[in-house]
Amino acid sequence: MPRVALNTTINGVDVQRMAETVKAIQNNSTLATFQFRAANRWFTGGYNQSTIHGFSAAGQEDTTRTQPFLVEADEPPVLLGKDQSPNPAEYVLHALAACLTTSLVYHAAARGIRIQSVESRLEGDLDLRGFLGLSDTLRRGFEKACERARIPFGLTVESGVIWLAGQANGLPIDMMAIP
Amino acid sequence: MPRVALNTTINGVDVQRMAETVKAIQNNSTLATFQFRAANRWFTGGYNQSTIHGFSAAGQEDTTRTQPFLVEADEPPVLLGKDQSPNPAEYVLHALAACLTTSLVYHAAARGIRIQSVESRLEGDLDLRGFLGLSDTLRRGFEKACERARIPFGLTVESGVIWLAGQANGLPIDMMAIP
Repeated sequence: MPRVALNTTINGVDVQRMAETVKAIQNNSTLATFQFRAANRWFTGGYNQSTIHGFSAAGQEDTTRTQPFLVEADEPPVLLGKDQSPNPAEYVLHALAACLTTSLVYHAAARGIRIQSVESRLEGDLDLRGFLGLSDTLRRGFEKACERARIPFGLTVESGVIWLAGQANGLPIDMMAIP
Repeated sequence: MPRVALNTTINGVDVQRMAETVKAIQNNSTLATFQFRAANRWFTGGYNQSTIHGFSAAGQEDTTRTQPFLVEADEPPVLLGKDQSPNPAEYVLHALAACLTTSLVYHAAARGIRIQSVESRLEGDLDLRGFLGLSDTLRRGFEKACERARIPFGLTVESGVIWLAGQANGLPIDMMAIP
């Protein structure tokens, strides 16, 4: 009888490779070392671009990414820019949302939980008086940020939102937590 | 004799409008209130997209941005993705670099300092054992991040790097400071 190949992909994540990666890191902690990079160049006013290319993974320089990514930043007219792209604060929200989503999907895959969809909305409030130096007490960044997520689960009745909250400690971008 | 129009743009920033904005906020602090947003949707594995459209500025909903921005996120193959875009950690570095650059350029413009160029390189180190829950002591995000910036000044002999360091407290994305 032919052996049936196991489908090792859950939520689009190769869980067998994931398990192998975890085991390899447990045996050799230097494989856990990653470095990401961005090189930014100013053009004019609120407009600048970052080139994102090289990174090191598992302690070695990556060779798979042959073309760099170019990411823009600008400010809307009310912040004296031309709104040619999202602004830095919006990219932070994107990074946090993307990190939240990917962490949730990967952690679920590792536990065999199939997810049908993940949608989230992030909002960040800031008071410009902090940045302008018009207040000593206001934060210069987001005063507060909140997210609302909707995660219909396929194979569990577990509440997606409660589960998500429990995963919050597992986010790689925890540096962005607002005190 | 005809009146000569003053050139109020420095570093691509309309400093007259900037001064008017500061004065308006000093007179009415509700004008300092901003909210930025991102709506994220998961596709598969490490790939997701954020739609960035509406925001409120000076306490009012913006009406100038008629088209949304779509920003992708993915992971490289070593992190089980297909590398279709920068990953969330790289977007954080982009956001920080862009914020650093824009803050520097705007603060310089407000002081009448003309800048010729700003280039910066950001690196963020992380240890995957934090994210994987293989260590209680390691951070789940960047262990440390550093930036190297080069800012040739046009009209001053001030050291750009020292000046930049002095501006660090003025960055709107100070939430990203690594303890």
